[in-house]
Amino acid sequence: MSKSIPFTKIVSELPHTVPFVGPEAQERNTGIHFRARLGANESCFGPSPKAIAAMTAAGPESWRYGDPENHDLRVAIAAHHSVSPSNVMIGEGIDGLLGCMAHMFVEPGVNVVTSLGSYPTFNFHIKSRGGDLDLIPYVSDHEDLGGLIETASRKNAAIIYVSNPNNPMGTWHDAGAIKEMIANLPSGTVLALDEAYIECAPEGVAPEIYISNPQVLRFRTFSKAYGLAGMRVGYVLGHEDVISAFDKVRNHYGMNRTGQIGALEALKDQAYLMEVNSKFSAGRSRIETIASAHGMETIKSVTNFVAIDCGRDSAFSKDILARLLAKGIFIRMPGVEPQSRCIRVSVGLDHELDLFEEAFAEVLKEVS
Amino acid sequence: MSKSIPFTKIVSELPHTVPFVGPEAQERNTGIHFRARLGANESCFGPSPKAIAAMTAAGPESWRYGDPENHDLRVAIAAHHSVSPSNVMIGEGIDGLLGCMAHMFVEPGVNVVTSLGSYPTFNFHIKSRGGDLDLIPYVSDHEDLGGLIETASRKNAAIIYVSNPNNPMGTWHDAGAIKEMIANLPSGTVLALDEAYIECAPEGVAPEIYISNPQVLRFRTFSKAYGLAGMRVGYVLGHEDVISAFDKVRNHYGMNRTGQIGALEALKDQAYLMEVNSKFSAGRSRIETIASAHGMETIKSVTNFVAIDCGRDSAFSKDILARLLAKGIFIRMPGVEPQSRCIRVSVGLDHELDLFEEAFAEVLKEVS
Repeated sequence: MSKSIPFTKIVSELPHTVPFVGPEAQERNTGIHFRARLGANESCFGPSPKAIAAMTAAGPESWRYGDPENHDLRVAIAAHHSVSPSNVMIGEGIDGLLGCMAHMFVEPGVNVVTSLGSYPTFNFHIKSRGGDLDLIPYVSDHEDLGGLIETASRKNAAIIYVSNPNNPMGTWHDAGAIKEMIANLPSGTVLALDEAYIECAPEGVAPEIYISNPQVLRFRTFSKAYGLAGMRVGYVLGHEDVISAFDKVRNHYGMNRTGQIGALEALKDQAYLMEVNSKFSAGRSRIETIASAHGMETIKSVTNFVAIDCGRDSAFSKDILARLLAKGIFIRMPGVEPQSRCIRVSVGLDHELDLFEEAFAEVLKEVS
Repeated sequence: MSKSIPFTKIVSELPHTVPFVGPEAQERNTGIHFRARLGANESCFGPSPKAIAAMTAAGPESWRYGDPENHDLRVAIAAHHSVSPSNVMIGEGIDGLLGCMAHMFVEPGVNVVTSLGSYPTFNFHIKSRGGDLDLIPYVSDHEDLGGLIETASRKNAAIIYVSNPNNPMGTWHDAGAIKEMIANLPSGTVLALDEAYIECAPEGVAPEIYISNPQVLRFRTFSKAYGLAGMRVGYVLGHEDVISAFDKVRNHYGMNRTGQIGALEALKDQAYLMEVNSKFSAGRSRIETIASAHGMETIKSVTNFVAIDCGRDSAFSKDILARLLAKGIFIRMPGVEPQSRCIRVSVGLDHELDLFEEAFAEVLKEVS
């Protein structure tokens, strides 16, 4: 790299790795066409037809910038959660909002705590600001809330990141455990609670939205159960003093107008969301049945994906995953032992799960 | 603000100001409905019908994440400019890419040079990283390239920001002047050349795209002449060592899939772009004629907007602007003397320029 380029020391020392290589890049790199897209925890059932209709109607108006305040969507989300619009910030997916949060809280010398093998994109944002990460191992495939709190307290951490329900395992803590964690947050530590899959989960997983505590930020998205991953719409709920600070750092005109409109309609169509959740539930059962036919356990999940325990080490699961990819079945797997004994399969359309079932049987025969 | 929130010192000291209050917020705040939207330099003529058709077709697939590598669009842009895809990075508008650039080059103690009264969003991104801005006055309503270079050299600046054609004045330097500036760049200084309006400009304003010089970044957008402001698609052209570093800091899944698809079709339809440019040219003439009828000069522009010299001080132009807003005519004006003697009017549809013409006459009668 030329010395004439004034990269900061932090950026010049960052590795050239990206959090997730997308399925399209995998297809380009291997020449394999993915017949089943079961690796990104999207909703193959799509968004509400009302959202699609509204986005179609918005097409000719796409020459207009979206409202940088995201007013209409923000008001609707606030009403949905019985909070004020000042407790809601919209961003380019949870990823975009996590980047803003890192900008707000992280600089060299700042400690951040997360689970080992949890969300790589969160870690990416922290490292890109020069933060130091403490990585706490899972306990029985669950995030170790006590361990996270203990470490945050000891290290004066600025942020604890927890996903509930958890990705990549699909496990969860109930609302009571999260509330206890919040009660025990060290002073000066913010809990970044990533609830990307919360719409899939039953009552009792999410605590109430209490926005009087400035140490709690709740991240939500339209990318999962709402079926709008392609439109990049996430939001964060929190105390207005923290929410308003996002305005100091965010890309104010970063939201696309069509996504604003689609998300608003998706939010309104809660009946459709319930239908989708029934399909996720049926899909999880199907994946469990497929695994069970081969004598494999699955990790109980309340998301739109299921981790299948392949019963051996990560080399074995990696081999299975590679063979499935080679057969055109796109899935992913946890990155760290012992969770990497599993492969992670998103709920798909029936014909995609048929393809997975068939390919999985072939692969297990090959590796046995 | 509670002491329990671990804001960095930089962020805690940032003011609660936003670069641009959008027209929707102005309407909400005042209760006035804007009948003419002539303030955001959008393209009221809209994107190519082929782009709209492709985005409509993409609606049902909006449950899929877009390709985080933006491969298809990146390849098409590279071919359009006869460079390699490794010289192209896509982002959430030029604003998003400027934010990434600030992340790459700016930290406390870093100096950055721009023109006084130039792009507030650029300044916003620099300040949010703790950078120090030197602001160089315009000379005869043009950015002072020599002054920018001289200051950058003296202050060891990491970045010089120049927009060519310039916003908010519509003025430009020819390619020769830009090339001379590039030849004189101090070692360790990157030129951020914002060419948001370059598709509107005639031959001879943009130098060739030379990507062998890592000190030059060229920012382009689909928001202006291509008519896709609402979809948030910008790109930057440069040396591959610098372009690849955007991957270290950007929101990899930040681009919406529909926008990727729409921009690709818009790029392909260069015939439509030429039609739009004819309309911009006619619109500029119309605005010049309206101003001239009141004895006012306009600043010669090669963009989709025209600055009208109201002939007095900024208080006078501000009064005119406020009265136009009150009549439902959304326009903006430069923020700093002496450019703030002007108001800035975007090319609009015929009926919008009719409304402007009528309201402008009324306002000038009121203030005379």
